[in-house]
Amino acid sequence: MPEENPKAVVLLSGGLDSATVAAIAKHEGYDLYALSFDYGQRHAVESEAARRVADAVGVKGHVFQRIDLRAFGGSALTDDIAVPKPGNGDGCGRGIPITYVPARNTIFLAVALGFAEVLGASDVFIGVNAVDFSGYPDCRPAFIEAFEKLANLATKAGVEGRPFRIHAPLIAMTKGQIIREGLHLGVDYSLTHSCYDPDDDGRACGRCESCRLRKRGFEEAGVPDPTRYGPSGGC
Amino acid sequence: MPEENPKAVVLLSGGLDSATVAAIAKHEGYDLYALSFDYGQRHAVESEAARRVADAVGVKGHVFQRIDLRAFGGSALTDDIAVPKPGNGDGCGRGIPITYVPARNTIFLAVALGFAEVLGASDVFIGVNAVDFSGYPDCRPAFIEAFEKLANLATKAGVEGRPFRIHAPLIAMTKGQIIREGLHLGVDYSLTHSCYDPDDDGRACGRCESCRLRKRGFEEAGVPDPTRYGPSGGC
Repeated sequence: MPEENPKAVVLLSGGLDSATVAAIAKHEGYDLYALSFDYGQRHAVESEAARRVADAVGVKGHVFQRIDLRAFGGSALTDDIAVPKPGNGDGCGRGIPITYVPARNTIFLAVALGFAEVLGASDVFIGVNAVDFSGYPDCRPAFIEAFEKLANLATKAGVEGRPFRIHAPLIAMTKGQIIREGLHLGVDYSLTHSCYDPDDDGRACGRCESCRLRKRGFEEAGVPDPTRYGPSGGC
Repeated sequence: MPEENPKAVVLLSGGLDSATVAAIAKHEGYDLYALSFDYGQRHAVESEAARRVADAVGVKGHVFQRIDLRAFGGSALTDDIAVPKPGNGDGCGRGIPITYVPARNTIFLAVALGFAEVLGASDVFIGVNAVDFSGYPDCRPAFIEAFEKLANLATKAGVEGRPFRIHAPLIAMTKGQIIREGLHLGVDYSLTHSCYDPDDDGRACGRCESCRLRKRGFEEAGVPDPTRYGPSGGC
């Protein structure tokens, strides 16, 4: 009988970071179970990207959860207010940006924990990193460590001595390092989507914080940027 | 100008415990914002009870969130398997019961945290208690403390020095004490619902773990039990 691989839940947004994390988890020998969210974000094109990335890396299962964070309001990603770009006040470098979604990673990890416990998986992968941090409190190492502690108090598996591990392998990497690691593992970044404000054809704006981080990453990695930009976004 | 009351988010299932917690929070001077979940549980009658309890206590807002934990499976409350009762193996006193829903309170508190942060509330109330614990790891004081620590690392408010408090005022109380406290504060327990397995008219089975805990609570409190039981449940 062939030995079974351990299972891992991977939070998969369809962005550059989570695609890289999925490739890392796969490379480490896990069978992947992807978990994606529609949390009322405007860029539903993310869900299509998550599907493409899951197919490309090869997952054993993929669950989409809808949770309507718009019911609470509170962020440019879910409210009907302008996405910050240069010239309309982006908040970069001035504390927590208005694109912060309250408790988002706490909610995502909590649901991932439930999925992992049902699967009998002890490992959850999440693509937070220091560059994406840019003021988001729930992207810091201390947050990940606190969630891991909580997970082991919260669950039957934790109580019974099968501790959970929350993996955040990108947490100390720059965008360029992430891209180089992903390319090394065969990630096709043309499948991924990062833009907060895509046009109707799903093309990236090239100007929002997420697009600018991504662009700088490809420049830093010294490789071509495969992103499809709208008319004014690629320059 | 009248002074504003502080806001609190109250997790409201429509059961006996959460109705009591809501009355306690109200009594302590908070303006209440109720948060209820439909997590694919079979007893949708809970949602109606949550509405009745919210109306009775008087809330400023009430958000229902749907999250489909059935997508993961793993519990008698959401799967299509028999609810444990005496005679069909209830697991009582023998570790974690099969009615345990993986990561449920972690998920509920995470979403409540997002709601609280949007509202500018620093206080979240949850009705976990030692009696309901009966083997559920996410009903213990250590879990609540770990979540509070996480909340203050996870959020803008926590980082900026407005710490969250997770209130679990029932955690050390018996069911009888909870009922006496609730009656003292004017809770109408006929509005609440506890049964895991109600009949089509919403009447309690009287035999599941939740019904038995509730019955014993009214006995312990020495007050009449206002629960509507089905034909064979009240005895």
